[in-house]
Amino acid sequence: MIRGDMNRKRQIAMRKVLSAIKMHGGTTLLSTGITGDDARLAKAAVDAGARMLEPNHPAVALARGYQGVTNMHDAEAIRHEISIEQMAEVTAGVRKVVGPEIFITVGIPGGFTEVLPRPLSEEDVRLIAEAGADGLHVHKSDLDDLRDIVELAHANGLLVDAYVAHPADLHPFGIPAETTEEVRDTAKKMEAIGVDMIGLMTGMSYEGVEAGQIPSAIRERLTALVTSVNAPTLAEGGINLQNFRAFRETGVNILVVGTAFDDIARQAVRDTVKVFLQNEAERDQA
Amino acid sequence: MIRGDMNRKRQIAMRKVLSAIKMHGGTTLLSTGITGDDARLAKAAVDAGARMLEPNHPAVALARGYQGVTNMHDAEAIRHEISIEQMAEVTAGVRKVVGPEIFITVGIPGGFTEVLPRPLSEEDVRLIAEAGADGLHVHKSDLDDLRDIVELAHANGLLVDAYVAHPADLHPFGIPAETTEEVRDTAKKMEAIGVDMIGLMTGMSYEGVEAGQIPSAIRERLTALVTSVNAPTLAEGGINLQNFRAFRETGVNILVVGTAFDDIARQAVRDTVKVFLQNEAERDQA
Repeated sequence: MIRGDMNRKRQIAMRKVLSAIKMHGGTTLLSTGITGDDARLAKAAVDAGARMLEPNHPAVALARGYQGVTNMHDAEAIRHEISIEQMAEVTAGVRKVVGPEIFITVGIPGGFTEVLPRPLSEEDVRLIAEAGADGLHVHKSDLDDLRDIVELAHANGLLVDAYVAHPADLHPFGIPAETTEEVRDTAKKMEAIGVDMIGLMTGMSYEGVEAGQIPSAIRERLTALVTSVNAPTLAEGGINLQNFRAFRETGVNILVVGTAFDDIARQAVRDTVKVFLQNEAERDQA
Repeated sequence: MIRGDMNRKRQIAMRKVLSAIKMHGGTTLLSTGITGDDARLAKAAVDAGARMLEPNHPAVALARGYQGVTNMHDAEAIRHEISIEQMAEVTAGVRKVVGPEIFITVGIPGGFTEVLPRPLSEEDVRLIAEAGADGLHVHKSDLDDLRDIVELAHANGLLVDAYVAHPADLHPFGIPAETTEEVRDTAKKMEAIGVDMIGLMTGMSYEGVEAGQIPSAIRERLTALVTSVNAPTLAEGGINLQNFRAFRETGVNILVVGTAFDDIARQAVRDTVKVFLQNEAERDQA
């Protein structure tokens, strides 16, 4: 009864993605971290030209001080305790302030590689779609699990962005592929099961890779991804102001940036607090 | 049964306040806006030396994109729709990441000048106290209403910071006092009913007063406040990096700063998004 409507919804979502990639010269930004879930900063990112946003549940755990976590590594360990309802509330709020033209993909409990039984239900996915999402940001590391989510997402009109990972990654955020040949094969398999946008985890260090450059292994893996599929491609992990140009040069379509925004906002706050608190004596000494 | 315990709780809270004022040479910072409710940036503010934080319900409405509001003026109109439970969740999260030594005063629906019947109950105030608050940030504009809240807050171990306003202010955020003489009288009346910290609204424009200076009327009103009470004093409204030194010079003990932090975080995000999105062609032209 709604298959045609949901296909149309996905087509509209894909047009937003392709339009953002074109608008930004072949490589656009998927703005996440504090710009994905705080409506004040999501609005700021969009005002500056961002066309794609990603609220996700570990970042919401950080935003809410949930369980006292203060960094993304710790947030990953408890992220499944954030509810689908909380993510729907965040998504609806961000959608309300950025308007209908912005692409929003959402990370939700059950959509990442889970350490507890956390299946996604039809109702879960529908709730996120009703909240205003265009897509699901998925970090499954098993192809069969990913296929199930793609089916559920598509039935509810959501695109899926999912990722190829390295088996040695700290967090299991994608389908493992060790060699560049395996990256190609895995990306093609993901495309074959209907993943709408295919990404590569590029070192989920949350602290950035080297300044000005990216390691040659990452460059080769990204090139393998970009040249093996027709779907829009993403790079996620360790992208910052020092190295993003090297990522762009691989031809990848979408740079996923989160922690770099958190760090920049934190630094701006720290610098400002210090000025407000600098007392007369300290200023005289300075 | 708990009166003594609650008096002790208030004494501990007041020691945090006095210690912050002393530590920062007579004038400290009450960090609010995005630094009051987003645990990531509350932590950043505290890491940089802030000792006092203020989560409040209109700022949470902005953070959540509630009703699509994107500025504090609009948020004030719908702030009462944020629930006590939401404010307790925010308070608990901020408390968890900043630790027990930081003073936290909380703005809650029912604690501001309300346009709908929104009484505060014993349970409401207890919930905020249990979430980890040291105080209630109160913006009542009627002295009898304020007296009721002071009683309820004190019974639950919370300090109250409340404000003197000008009758011509855009938002009614304090007890109205037109002349400097009335400012003195009002501040003394507030102290007499037990308000623990007494502030002055200094032009709640959310856009800052003039650069480098504060209007002489504001200076005179602040001086009247500071010289009329023994309680710690606050200035709230329009304080930013350009004018805060002029505020300090009045001898006021606490500068309440919110929108300046929102603006700085937004600007940092906007600047960074623009760099990430600047394509090759644009950079060649630049």
